[in-house]
Amino acid sequence: MSRLATTTLRPMSRAVSERPALDGPVLVVGAGLIGGSVAMALSRAGIEVFITDVDRRAAHVASSRGAGSEEAPDPDRVRLVVVATPPDHLGSEIIAALETYPRAVVTDVGSVKAQAWAEVAGSRADARRYVGGHPMAGSERSGPMASAPDLFEGRAWAVVRRDDCNADAVGSVRALVEACGATVVEMAADDHDTAVARVSHLPHLVAVLAAGSLADAPRNHLALSGQGVRDVTRVAAGDPELWRQIVLANAEALTLLLTQVRDGIDDLVESLGTGDGERLEKILRAGVAGTEAIPGKHGGATRLFATVNVSIPDEPGALARLFADAGEAGVNIEDLRIDHDPGRAFGLVEIDVAERRAESLIDALRARNWSVHR
Amino acid sequence: MSRLATTTLRPMSRAVSERPALDGPVLVVGAGLIGGSVAMALSRAGIEVFITDVDRRAAHVASSRGAGSEEAPDPDRVRLVVVATPPDHLGSEIIAALETYPRAVVTDVGSVKAQAWAEVAGSRADARRYVGGHPMAGSERSGPMASAPDLFEGRAWAVVRRDDCNADAVGSVRALVEACGATVVEMAADDHDTAVARVSHLPHLVAVLAAGSLADAPRNHLALSGQGVRDVTRVAAGDPELWRQIVLANAEALTLLLTQVRDGIDDLVESLGTGDGERLEKILRAGVAGTEAIPGKHGGATRLFATVNVSIPDEPGALARLFADAGEAGVNIEDLRIDHDPGRAFGLVEIDVAERRAESLIDALRARNWSVHR
Repeated sequence: MSRLATTTLRPMSRAVSERPALDGPVLVVGAGLIGGSVAMALSRAGIEVFITDVDRRAAHVASSRGAGSEEAPDPDRVRLVVVATPPDHLGSEIIAALETYPRAVVTDVGSVKAQAWAEVAGSRADARRYVGGHPMAGSERSGPMASAPDLFEGRAWAVVRRDDCNADAVGSVRALVEACGATVVEMAADDHDTAVARVSHLPHLVAVLAAGSLADAPRNHLALSGQGVRDVTRVAAGDPELWRQIVLANAEALTLLLTQVRDGIDDLVESLGTGDGERLEKILRAGVAGTEAIPGKHGGATRLFATVNVSIPDEPGALARLFADAGEAGVNIEDLRIDHDPGRAFGLVEIDVAERRAESLIDALRARNWSVHR
Repeated sequence: MSRLATTTLRPMSRAVSERPALDGPVLVVGAGLIGGSVAMALSRAGIEVFITDVDRRAAHVASSRGAGSEEAPDPDRVRLVVVATPPDHLGSEIIAALETYPRAVVTDVGSVKAQAWAEVAGSRADARRYVGGHPMAGSERSGPMASAPDLFEGRAWAVVRRDDCNADAVGSVRALVEACGATVVEMAADDHDTAVARVSHLPHLVAVLAAGSLADAPRNHLALSGQGVRDVTRVAAGDPELWRQIVLANAEALTLLLTQVRDGIDDLVESLGTGDGERLEKILRAGVAGTEAIPGKHGGATRLFATVNVSIPDEPGALARLFADAGEAGVNIEDLRIDHDPGRAFGLVEIDVAERRAESLIDALRARNWSVHR
């Protein structure tokens, strides 16, 4: 049995009860997807929560969905402020919170940190009470109606500190992350921004450029689209207004990375022009190395999975039958992709399982009459 | 009920019996993943198949796995030759097949067509008997042990002809595609190469460059990796030697597209440098338009799906229970992604369903105690 196949069933409620306590009241500034979800998670954990938004209707909707009170809290009682406004307003809102709530730790959920740090440090506010935060969770949906208390369950959440941060403040933000069910990844502000430029913002922009080249493509060209191009371009569907703010706030780190990609393109074009296969293969091998550098699931080293392909009728219940049959075989499914193709009434499911479990899964599924291959 | 939810169960064997007849014997040249799979699919359909490879052991392995006979066929009897060699040898193998098998139609399974066309046209072989082919199927695995007769089930397969192609030859290649369970997409050679440059080769190279920038990234940066970067870079793990041959063979179309991407990068870098949000947002919107241009599943117009997020314990049987519960709700799952994050013993499943079915799925899953949100 693989390590995963022997994982003991652990009810979610027990994980919740193990989390360290977070002192309230907490004020959440901004009732969008992220702010609303933080407020709902904390309210559900029994913490006193207030929520506010420049759009009072948004705060009202969030409050009515379990995100706490829309009343104004007593400024001296607030222990933690979570700033969850759009990127353009982060710095000024963090400074305002430090000044308005003199006993509160202040954090935020912004995608980029250096700019907000600089604004806070350049103000007269008490920067030692500010610790940055960045949950690696989101959705193509936005607004308080999209919020949910378990949006952060199992996600990484960067906690971004400077040396002069108050240690208690860091502890409060760690407790916030854990109360929301996420995992703390602590790092410095500059480091954080370079990291997200690499693992989030650059892949987003590269996907945007690849997708952009499809916008005017003839319909019969697009008919050959497979899972590859869908995967590469999926994130490019994200909200352009939000992404404009994010990439502008991280312009410096992104410019450096984009310049490297441009050098990579020059390298490719030259290799294609001169037919230099060796140089091309070197570039392609660096790409393989990059995919291997992404940490494996469960945070461990990269593990090798085998892919098992199954044809399924395209109808309710087919996937349920497939997974019931896989479950009976005692094999844990690590990942899967579903691919429907033109003109066919069924689809293909690609199931990733631990390499050494693949054969027994194939045997089990074939015994149950599934059309399966590696 | 959505259109999909009412799809009637259709056993796969019935689809097989509806396919038009293909006359044998068929000779498959090249016993790798694709050649072996074609030979197995045709053998299973009752067609007489011969398979050959410069590596005789590969042909022997394929033959022993149900890919037909490894004996040499009588050249005058062969009706169809499928050339399934690496891209570098396509042209010469097609010409050799036209000359050696005087009564046979010849096709191939190569990713790029113009170069092979030029070689065939420049030879003294009878080019009217050659019709190109390109199945949109593959795997990160290779060789005859990875072959399977249903590799092409439900996939698109480009049939690439010139005006002077013999009509009977086109009919034979169409029958081959259908005997393999794939869907014919007919197009001209130049058009095909531009199409795959766009929907396959350019996305591959862009993913390689994005992945390449991760190869030397610090481990704590990579800890923030989410589903986005995994999706964008996944294809970059493909075989560098195969991809070197593919991109070199399609150098002209790719150089043009890469130059456009480089212009896009210059545009991005300038916009970031001058802080021109309007220009940035225009680029981001073109990316959104590109994702919308990719045909919807089932070959129809793009349909809007809603994403429902469910937390699941990471153990065998959890997915089976989830899909059984979703199946009972009568909701068809269009696509899904599984995301495990560091340090947590459970994962997140993102399920795409028809927009109007999302609420009833959420209600059904909540009623069965799943932790679910949009």
